[in-house]
Amino acid sequence: MTVRVGVIGTGMIGRDHIRRITQVIPGGRVAAVTDVDISRAEQVAETLPGVRVHPTGQHLIADGEVDAVLVASWGATHEEYVLAAIAAGKRVLCEKPLAPTAAGAMRIVEAEMAAGRRLVQVGFMRRYDPGYNALKDALDSGQAGVPLLMHCAHRNPSAPPYGFTTDMIISDSAVHEMDLVRWLFDEEIVATSVLRPRPTSKAAEGMQDPLIVLLEMASGILVDVEVFMNADYGYDVRAEVVGEAGTLALADTGGGVTITRRGRRSGWVPADWRERFTRAFDAEFTDWLRAVAAGTITGPGSWDGYAAALVTDQCLRALGTGSRVPVDMPERPDFYAKGHE
Amino acid sequence: MTVRVGVIGTGMIGRDHIRRITQVIPGGRVAAVTDVDISRAEQVAETLPGVRVHPTGQHLIADGEVDAVLVASWGATHEEYVLAAIAAGKRVLCEKPLAPTAAGAMRIVEAEMAAGRRLVQVGFMRRYDPGYNALKDALDSGQAGVPLLMHCAHRNPSAPPYGFTTDMIISDSAVHEMDLVRWLFDEEIVATSVLRPRPTSKAAEGMQDPLIVLLEMASGILVDVEVFMNADYGYDVRAEVVGEAGTLALADTGGGVTITRRGRRSGWVPADWRERFTRAFDAEFTDWLRAVAAGTITGPGSWDGYAAALVTDQCLRALGTGSRVPVDMPERPDFYAKGHE
Amino acid sequence: MTVRVGVIGTGMIGRDHIRRITQVIPGGRVAAVTDVDISRAEQVAETLPGVRVHPTGQHLIADGEVDAVLVASWGATHEEYVLAAIAAGKRVLCEKPLAPTAAGAMRIVEAEMAAGRRLVQVGFMRRYDPGYNALKDALDSGQAGVPLLMHCAHRNPSAPPYGFTTDMIISDSAVHEMDLVRWLFDEEIVATSVLRPRPTSKAAEGMQDPLIVLLEMASGILVDVEVFMNADYGYDVRAEVVGEAGTLALADTGGGVTITRRGRRSGWVPADWRERFTRAFDAEFTDWLRAVAAGTITGPGSWDGYAAALVTDQCLRALGTGSRVPVDMPERPDFYAKGHE
Amino acid sequence: MTVRVGVIGTGMIGRDHIRRITQVIPGGRVAAVTDVDISRAEQVAETLPGVRVHPTGQHLIADGEVDAVLVASWGATHEEYVLAAIAAGKRVLCEKPLAPTAAGAMRIVEAEMAAGRRLVQVGFMRRYDPGYNALKDALDSGQAGVPLLMHCAHRNPSAPPYGFTTDMIISDSAVHEMDLVRWLFDEEIVATSVLRPRPTSKAAEGMQDPLIVLLEMASGILVDVEVFMNADYGYDVRAEVVGEAGTLALADTGGGVTITRRGRRSGWVPADWRERFTRAFDAEFTDWLRAVAAGTITGPGSWDGYAAALVTDQCLRALGTGSRVPVDMPERPDFYAKGHE
Repeated sequence: MTVRVGVIGTGMIGRDHIRRITQVIPGGRVAAVTDVDISRAEQVAETLPGVRVHPTGQHLIADGEVDAVLVASWGATHEEYVLAAIAAGKRVLCEKPLAPTAAGAMRIVEAEMAAGRRLVQVGFMRRYDPGYNALKDALDSGQAGVPLLMHCAHRNPSAPPYGFTTDMIISDSAVHEMDLVRWLFDEEIVATSVLRPRPTSKAAEGMQDPLIVLLEMASGILVDVEVFMNADYGYDVRAEVVGEAGTLALADTGGGVTITRRGRRSGWVPADWRERFTRAFDAEFTDWLRAVAAGTITGPGSWDGYAAALVTDQCLRALGTGSRVPVDMPERPDFYAKGHE
Repeated sequence: MTVRVGVIGTGMIGRDHIRRITQVIPGGRVAAVTDVDISRAEQVAETLPGVRVHPTGQHLIADGEVDAVLVASWGATHEEYVLAAIAAGKRVLCEKPLAPTAAGAMRIVEAEMAAGRRLVQVGFMRRYDPGYNALKDALDSGQAGVPLLMHCAHRNPSAPPYGFTTDMIISDSAVHEMDLVRWLFDEEIVATSVLRPRPTSKAAEGMQDPLIVLLEMASGILVDVEVFMNADYGYDVRAEVVGEAGTLALADTGGGVTITRRGRRSGWVPADWRERFTRAFDAEFTDWLRAVAAGTITGPGSWDGYAAALVTDQCLRALGTGSRVPVDMPERPDFYAKGHE
Repeated sequence: MTVRVGVIGTGMIGRDHIRRITQVIPGGRVAAVTDVDISRAEQVAETLPGVRVHPTGQHLIADGEVDAVLVASWGATHEEYVLAAIAAGKRVLCEKPLAPTAAGAMRIVEAEMAAGRRLVQVGFMRRYDPGYNALKDALDSGQAGVPLLMHCAHRNPSAPPYGFTTDMIISDSAVHEMDLVRWLFDEEIVATSVLRPRPTSKAAEGMQDPLIVLLEMASGILVDVEVFMNADYGYDVRAEVVGEAGTLALADTGGGVTITRRGRRSGWVPADWRERFTRAFDAEFTDWLRAVAAGTITGPGSWDGYAAALVTDQCLRALGTGSRVPVDMPERPDFYAKGHE
Repeated sequence: MTVRVGVIGTGMIGRDHIRRITQVIPGGRVAAVTDVDISRAEQVAETLPGVRVHPTGQHLIADGEVDAVLVASWGATHEEYVLAAIAAGKRVLCEKPLAPTAAGAMRIVEAEMAAGRRLVQVGFMRRYDPGYNALKDALDSGQAGVPLLMHCAHRNPSAPPYGFTTDMIISDSAVHEMDLVRWLFDEEIVATSVLRPRPTSKAAEGMQDPLIVLLEMASGILVDVEVFMNADYGYDVRAEVVGEAGTLALADTGGGVTITRRGRRSGWVPADWRERFTRAFDAEFTDWLRAVAAGTITGPGSWDGYAAALVTDQCLRALGTGSRVPVDMPERPDFYAKGHE
């Protein structure tokens, strides 16, 4: 079954998800779109044959050819659309926040429970990050012992240029760590405090950036989160769990977990070629299928296969003789020139 | 257009690619399969509704509902199937080697040129690896200056247990580097030598493992490749280009390139959250679409959205007051318990 | 001038400093020792020809052949000995703490000012660490911009087995960071708080370990220090300064600073062989002088020089001919065998 | 006993060693100097009270107040001075090469054996490098299994501006690796080859730089050494031993060894504070003794001790109350101002 997705909100995030559903992953297609700025929705629809444009989110949710709804509109509108999707009995993926206040979120919880089945997913995508999953696996394996505290940093190069407030550092950014630590430690947050370091001069007038958010977990684990919206140098998300027997940290570029225990700090080596080159194979096949559909070949071709075979022949000769062996490669035919496809 | 793929060879690699086309990427579906062991092809087909099983590769290629062919059979059979696909005018992705000898590969080149259009792609998937692409981008940007030499290591934890010979270290493993350096430097290999270090006792009787393969490029760049099939500790692919102004190396876990120049050795920090969390978003949406199709929700739900909203509320209170604020989380309803979906 | 040092306290730290003055650095010699356990002082003196043993610190300070005093006794006794040294007009290096309370330290300040010249140094040795100095240099160079906050971790594998209290985590361990941040940022601490994460079960009964100590600097820089006495895995001191334009962190093993700015995270490469091999040269010469004084040679000898010259000859031949050249090394004479010196 | 050292050659290296003996390590003092440019020797002597200047190396060796000789002159003169030192029965540390040819080195071996006792040490200082020693310890511990091959890189930012030839890349630079692998593996080199990568345009006209030197050890271990005199970016010495069970590599900045085995790549964490801060303590005491000898104090003083005690007091109050506690630091008296000593 190919899921027909209706997308509410075609801003930057909505369009990125449309690209994802259309070009990157299998299993779904975009069936309908809407946006508070309807012309923006229409522009998006023009690039997607067969996609309908609806005047409002409610119309989109009611569309019989929409199986499931993606809510990527402005946060203040989330509750209304999620409640409508529940009322329509349709599954919905809602970008965070589910609602701007706990009261609003509770209304969604109550509506979903009244509906009697799970319909709502919230866009806490860090639970799907390979790095955080490696961290959770290592934590659950007990390699660092019982967790005692955790240091996090969540740095953006710069805050959005308009309307971003100090409160939003918490509700839009730190909210990711709030969900993450509940998932990671599988326990609730029982108290919080917020500290104010010296503010950067690169933030908007009157903004307190960075903040340190302290989260106390039910078991006593203390989490400190540096949230810095105008860190300037790049986007950097860091996490280190300190346990009774060692520490677990996200590796620098998100590729696995750095484990420190018994006097050594260590990173991971892949177990086999599939683990190492999974992304390369995925990209190769995506590219090949696209080229085939377009009536061409864009990857390495027969000539490259021939060249490798010729070098292999001569290498085997070198192996056999113990000597240096020249490789006399013929000129590449124009047929195989770049740009000639 | 969804490309209908016929798969010749349903061994480990063929099945991995079937999983890829079916579950990981969009744009294609498996329409037909065959294998020298026909029962193996039938087993695979049972899990894929609507897939046809053909007695031979030639029958599969002739199938009118096969748009394109994937050749993942034993290397010695590649030439025959690729030539048949060319004769049928169908595009084909052939796992390496294109053919076991240069003469065989040249016959494919000639057939494709006679057909008058590009039909063949060879499975040199490293050209699609994000790490090697970052290396190539850095090289082309000139950050390390003119390239002079390159050190490679290509280590497998252990050679396949049956029938793997010293020659195959070159024809099956080092062949990846042969193609890679042609692509990376955009020039041909002009000579080769093979050196024999002390062999490991963990290889099969009589096998010379590891080898050092030297490849001389047309411009004089000298590439040394350590190929080690029984490296024991893991799968490790390393590459370092040494240029007139610095060096470029694959980062440890394939996540980008380590650049050394002007007295500093540096790795990369993502520019924004999309770059950092692309894989998390892809996994999140793949998972959501799968769950929707199965009539459920498996990711973070309304209760998680509520919990985050409640903590956000209290954080904002803590920010406003400068004090520690408790969070009184209600019990999670059974409705949202794990395993209850 | 060789400084004649009197050492008060010959416990683990005192003996380590005696080794340092005697065997590692030039410029001083140990002239006298004392200890509350006089037999321990006598044992130490037996290994050091010409060293006098005094019954008390006061006697040692009064010794006319003691130019300067090292106080390495139990913290509660520091004030008394430092005041005595000031009264005697002798320079004194006092291990931290200078005094257990601010009131006691102020009495020393007043006595030294009354004496009219600087006589006292406190053992805050982190100011001399190459890593922290690289961090300070990078900070002062402005590469990370104005500093806003700092994360520190100070982990010991295990607390001393006897009499170590929660208070001492602050007075004995965190005290290093208190001095360090004053030196690093060249400004004072204006407020402090202490947080209590979940305590490790590996600490002594009733001990709250780890702690998070917060230090607020005059400019608003907020410093958080994780102090963990029973971290189990090793001794690990970490520091990261976050500034308006980037971050500066101690490199993993203390060798320089990791700088993150403009999208790259970078470490240092030595500028020349002296920088890289300074410690090797120091060790080589220390070893050689010791061997000469003992009437022997323990390092690489003439035979090693010959072997290198022979290989050099053959390498030059290989360079000239482009071929592999064998090296026929004669048997090493017994005269040059290991253990034969 | 303080060894009285005579130094032959007061160029860059000689002067660096004079600084080492005089200011960095204990156990020796420079008693006499000479240089082919006698005015240069005289300049050096002016800064060292009591040091004699000799017209020739022979005169210096004959000086009754010279216990041991350091030969740091031009390589071609080494043999003559070492033979003279042997004849005089004095111990000698000779910078590499011991002699420019194997024949010359053999004459020294024969003279020393005739003298009947070990008198000569060669300046292969890498044997004293902490990084290489960690590598050797790890190798000897068997963590990587039986060694099979080794990759080395030896990069200088630029060759000396005058008179440096291609041959000298081998005789002056690669000679370090020749000695190193003999020491590391404790076996001899049995053959060598030299490869010529594309030369850098930054080398002097006609120079072949870089080179790859291949060294074959008696057991079959194959060592490849990239020697690159004009690497531009810095001084970088790298080494990786590949064994049957894993690899051992010098860590980036020489601080220990990176071990890859059983699926993890790991670096070292210090075991205790002495290991981590040895160099800080050494520098602290060297500085203190120098200041005392000069009649001053330059390190952290009583005021710093007071400040730390005051913050400690307030931290303990914060720990006890669970609240934020202000620190009211008095103004620092001028007496303790920087520059006022």
